[in-house]
Order: sequence, then C-alpha cells, then structure tokens
Amino acid sequence: MSSPTLPLINTLKQPTSWAWVEQAIANLDIILLDHSHCERKAAGVALNLMFRYPSSTQLVRQLTAIAREELEHFEQVNQWLERRDIPLAPLSPPPYGAGLKTLIRRDEPERLLDSLLVSGLIEARSHERLGLLATHCPHVELAKFYRGLMASEARHYGIYWVLADTYFERDVVQERLEELAIRESELLVTLHPEPRIHS
Amino acid sequence: MSSPTLPLINTLKQPTSWAWVEQAIANLDIILLDHSHCERKAAGVALNLMFRYPSSTQLVRQLTAIAREELEHFEQVNQWLERRDIPLAPLSPPPYGAGLKTLIRRDEPERLLDSLLVSGLIEARSHERLGLLATHCPHVELAKFYRGLMASEARHYGIYWVLADTYFERDVVQERLEELAIRESELLVTLHPEPRIHS
Repeated sequence: MSSPTLPLINTLKQPTSWAWVEQAIANLDIILLDHSHCERKAAGVALNLMFRYPSSTQLVRQLTAIAREELEHFEQVNQWLERRDIPLAPLSPPPYGAGLKTLIRRDEPERLLDSLLVSGLIEARSHERLGLLATHCPHVELAKFYRGLMASEARHYGIYWVLADTYFERDVVQERLEELAIRESELLVTLHPEPRIHS
Repeated sequence: MSSPTLPLINTLKQPTSWAWVEQAIANLDIILLDHSHCERKAAGVALNLMFRYPSSTQLVRQLTAIAREELEHFEQVNQWLERRDIPLAPLSPPPYGAGLKTLIRRDEPERLLDSLLVSGLIEARSHERLGLLATHCPHVELAKFYRGLMASEARHYGIYWVLADTYFERDVVQERLEELAIRESELLVTLHPEPRIHS
C-alpha cells in the first residue's frame, strides 16, 4: 500500500508524513513519555511569557488559563504512564523546538510577536498529531484520550493567535505567521530517527 | 499602645514583627500586587523543580498539584486587583527571595534538599503573613480571601517537607531545616522599606 497523504490542518503549511504516524504507532510508550515532557514544556513556555510580560493583562489572563490546562494534561498523561508501567525519565528532545526557537527575533516588539506565533504553531502541530494518534492508535482507550486532548490544542492555537492579534496589526501578524509556518514545516521534512511527538 | 508580639508559626524561628503588619495594612494595594507576583513565582519555582528532576515521580506528582493551585491563586489575586482597579505592573522584589537563594548549595543531592526546604520555609512564612492579613485587614471580604488562602500555604509547606523526608534521611532534613530556618528569620529582622509580602 502506498503511504496516504494526510489532511492539512489550517495554518500549517505541510501535513505530517505517514512515516511519522507509523513511527509513532510502533512506539506508543515512548510517544506517551515524550508527550508528558511536551505538556510540561508547554506549561513552562506559557509561564515564562507571563514572567516576561507581567503587565500585559490579556496575555497574563489567557496564558494563566493555558498553563493550568497544560498542567492538567501533564497529570493525565502521567497517569497513563503509570497505568502502562512506564517510569518517568528524561528523553532527548527532537531538533524541532530548538529549531523554532532560533526563529524568535531578539528585540521587542518582534520577540513577543514571534514567541506568540511560534507557540501557536506548536499547538497547531500538536493538534494535528494528537488527531492522527486519535485516528490511528490501535488502543481504543488511549485513542479516546488523544481525541479529548486535541480539541484543547486547537483552542490554545486560537488563543495564541488572538493574543498576537491583540498586540499587533493584523497584516504584520499574517505576514510573519506565513514566514514562520513555512519554516515550521521545513523543520519536519526529515523524520527525526527517535520517535517523538514532534519528530 | 506598644507593638504586640505575634504568635510563632511552627518551623519558623522568629515571628513577623508588628511593624510589618502596620506597613502591609497601610499599603493593601501594593501588597495585593506583590502577592500576585508571589503566586506566579511560586508556580514557577514548582515547575522549575519538575524540570530539574523529571524522573522523580513523587516530586513531579506533588509539585504539579502545587503549581496548579498556585496558578489558581494567581488568577484569584488578579481578580482582586481588577476589582480594585489596580493594573498589573512589575514590582521590585524585596531582598528575601534572593537572600534565600544564596543558601541553596550547588551540588546534588544537597541542592535538592535545600531547594525543597527553602520553598517550604517560604510557604510557611506566607502562611503566617496571610494569616496576619486575614486577622488585621480592615476590609472584610479581602480578609476572608486571605483566610481561604492561608490554609493552602500551610499545606504546601507540608508537601515540601514530606518530599524532603521522602528523598533524605530525617535527621539530615531536620538539621538542615534548623539552619535554614534561622537564616530565613534573620533575613526578615530589618523591615524592608517597600511594602511586600516578604518585606
């Protein structure tokens, strides 16, 4: 059977490859462990932004809600790890996160814009990939769990986009999102050999 | 009227001075704003420890719960700020936090022990001071809010202590806690001129 081309999520420039789905399904335990790290990191990113912009009321309010929800998901993923007897352990990250980080410009206000859009793109990609796990994971209960989470990731993407739209002109946001989305997809063209949510 | 001597909370070596209570009550708006920063920082500290010790199951589990609760309190304090028309704004921290940080030894396993005990002492002091606000704050609703929070701070102190007791021998914990508690009280002997939760 030839590898199917997967549907493209709004905002993302390229859909995930079928090779990623095969890699993930063949390594569900590692994917779960990596997912745990992703949820903790996502909470950390939201909290860091709140520390960096403590006077930006909308940003603080929305990111507090995101951070709380990511921590709730972190707890839920960790319960899955426990249920499957997978001990918590560090995992080397794929190059995706570090690659995206280099795209964030250093000076304000560009730094804020890029930070929001990069976070949004990660949420959009996570939404896509959790959706693929929800569809293709052979374990019914786990698939259901992924289905529950993917809606949150889409909502988080929306919040990051609305925040960018709150603090910046819409055409500036659109133009930069276009550039960043192209680079985001490029970072995933070559499948990382280690199975990860963002390999 | 001479300044009353305030009751001593278990673990702390010296009670808060009456001068702090007077300073805080005279500056409730700044205290609320600083309190907001404290809750965000407390969530950040818990999350940082989870990043530093990602394989320590008990630590990760307990600190996830603490971080979630601190973020909930952060939201609640921010609602109070909004209600009183106090805009979010940065505030210079008092020397307390930086002073405690210098006491954390750099090498493991001492770094973990000291991090847990210092966090525990901050929670114990916060418990004491929110209790003082609950008792002496002239605003009835705000006093009630502080009363609700102070129980959590006591519980958080307990969790940090139990974690120290999980990963270290009890006599090692007790001896180091004794040393750190003495230093913690010393840091508060001179009232910081700016009104803060930990001035």
